[in-house]
Amino acid sequence: MDNRSIGVFDSGVGGLTVLKELKKKLPHEDYIYIGDTASFPYGSKSKDTIIELSKKRIENLIDMNAKIIVIACGTATSQALKEMQKIFNIPIIGIINPTVDYLKKGNKKRIGVIATAGTIRSNGWKNNIDKMIDNAIVINKACPLLAPMAEEGWTENEIARLTIHEYLKDMASENLEALILGCTHYPLFKKMIENELGKNVEIINTGEMVAKELEEYLLQNNIENDKKNQTKVDIFLTDTECNFLNVAKKLLENENIDIKKL
Amino acid sequence: MDNRSIGVFDSGVGGLTVLKELKKKLPHEDYIYIGDTASFPYGSKSKDTIIELSKKRIENLIDMNAKIIVIACGTATSQALKEMQKIFNIPIIGIINPTVDYLKKGNKKRIGVIATAGTIRSNGWKNNIDKMIDNAIVINKACPLLAPMAEEGWTENEIARLTIHEYLKDMASENLEALILGCTHYPLFKKMIENELGKNVEIINTGEMVAKELEEYLLQNNIENDKKNQTKVDIFLTDTECNFLNVAKKLLENENIDIKKL
Repeated sequence: MDNRSIGVFDSGVGGLTVLKELKKKLPHEDYIYIGDTASFPYGSKSKDTIIELSKKRIENLIDMNAKIIVIACGTATSQALKEMQKIFNIPIIGIINPTVDYLKKGNKKRIGVIATAGTIRSNGWKNNIDKMIDNAIVINKACPLLAPMAEEGWTENEIARLTIHEYLKDMASENLEALILGCTHYPLFKKMIENELGKNVEIINTGEMVAKELEEYLLQNNIENDKKNQTKVDIFLTDTECNFLNVAKKLLENENIDIKKL
Repeated sequence: MDNRSIGVFDSGVGGLTVLKELKKKLPHEDYIYIGDTASFPYGSKSKDTIIELSKKRIENLIDMNAKIIVIACGTATSQALKEMQKIFNIPIIGIINPTVDYLKKGNKKRIGVIATAGTIRSNGWKNNIDKMIDNAIVINKACPLLAPMAEEGWTENEIARLTIHEYLKDMASENLEALILGCTHYPLFKKMIENELGKNVEIINTGEMVAKELEEYLLQNNIENDKKNQTKVDIFLTDTECNFLNVAKKLLENENIDIKKL
């Protein structure tokens, strides 16, 4: 048993979609979440910058006594996970491997990936899928406006709907079996994306896959939290962000949310 | 006479709207333009980061033998101009003072400002207007999605129109006399903004104001270019950006555009 917290970080509100799934699967754990809003967006930054930022955020989480790190960000997973696993001794989980494992088990071959420009450019998803799934066909699409739109809190309006149509209209004819939401902001648009692509395409929320992987890791290594009473979520932001609280309230229902400046 | 180039920088394509006005007013000058696309957007970054980035870009332009610097970016002007003028000996012009001078001469009192979150938060426009124009009323609005939308090349579609409506709908009832486009990306949406606010509101393209100020400065200090033949524009980007060339072609008509990586 290990009663320390699970450390989670993202560039902004996006990682809260992962945190939500972690809390659903592992409600007896404590969580520390860092939203690196001062450096948002990660999606348009270079690999070197993403590595440097990821290193700082993981150091923050280790200083706050985390027992394991979840990189709840597609860009940071694709650009920096390997380097972080070399630098740090603490276990670090990203969003790509658990997701590709799931697709492999489901025998999915025609796979769409939507993500930030940086993630698509890095080929982080495609390389992992090609390595693990034989004869997979990966169709990539960078959607640079979706994460800023989620940070602005525009996830249910007509502008969001038209933007999703613009980005996904070419994918509708690709006979996809699954679409990976390769940026953790995108589950905020999940219903709209489903409406755009129809029911035959399984929309993959990476947070659910990460939650399964995390649960297995904690059990196998016997480091679950033994508390059965009230747990806590500490949220830290590197810069103030007025929409963060609104999105957090919507995602983490009935949660007493306290946001501090890092 | 001074045949060296005029150095211009911005976070991305936005400053090209300023460059366009400079070339119109001063067609016999040579220009070096840096688009800091690797660090785009400036609008959501901290003051310290903007100062650091501005310093690097001005050093680049000085190394390339610029005779004067134009900060063609609202965020960098509001957050870093004063500091840059302290650090460097080279003359540096921003977009705020020339614009506020123009509004004062026109006796404008009810003034709207739209800009990035960083610029609005810094109060760069409001402080300057309050200092120079008695009894001015300034109505601010941060529009964080407009610059990313311009970088994406979405300046004429329905999504852009709805976004502008969403940001400006409350300003329509404010009886504004002028609206400052406080981010240099925004002139790309000028027609849509005019349609939204009506003909009674003068839409201020800061590039035109900067061009006047630059012309006066060159004449007063006798440092114009004496060439009357073909002039050149060198464009450098800190990161590759596929939409940059499209926007550049649209703005700098009939121009032989050569874009290099910095």
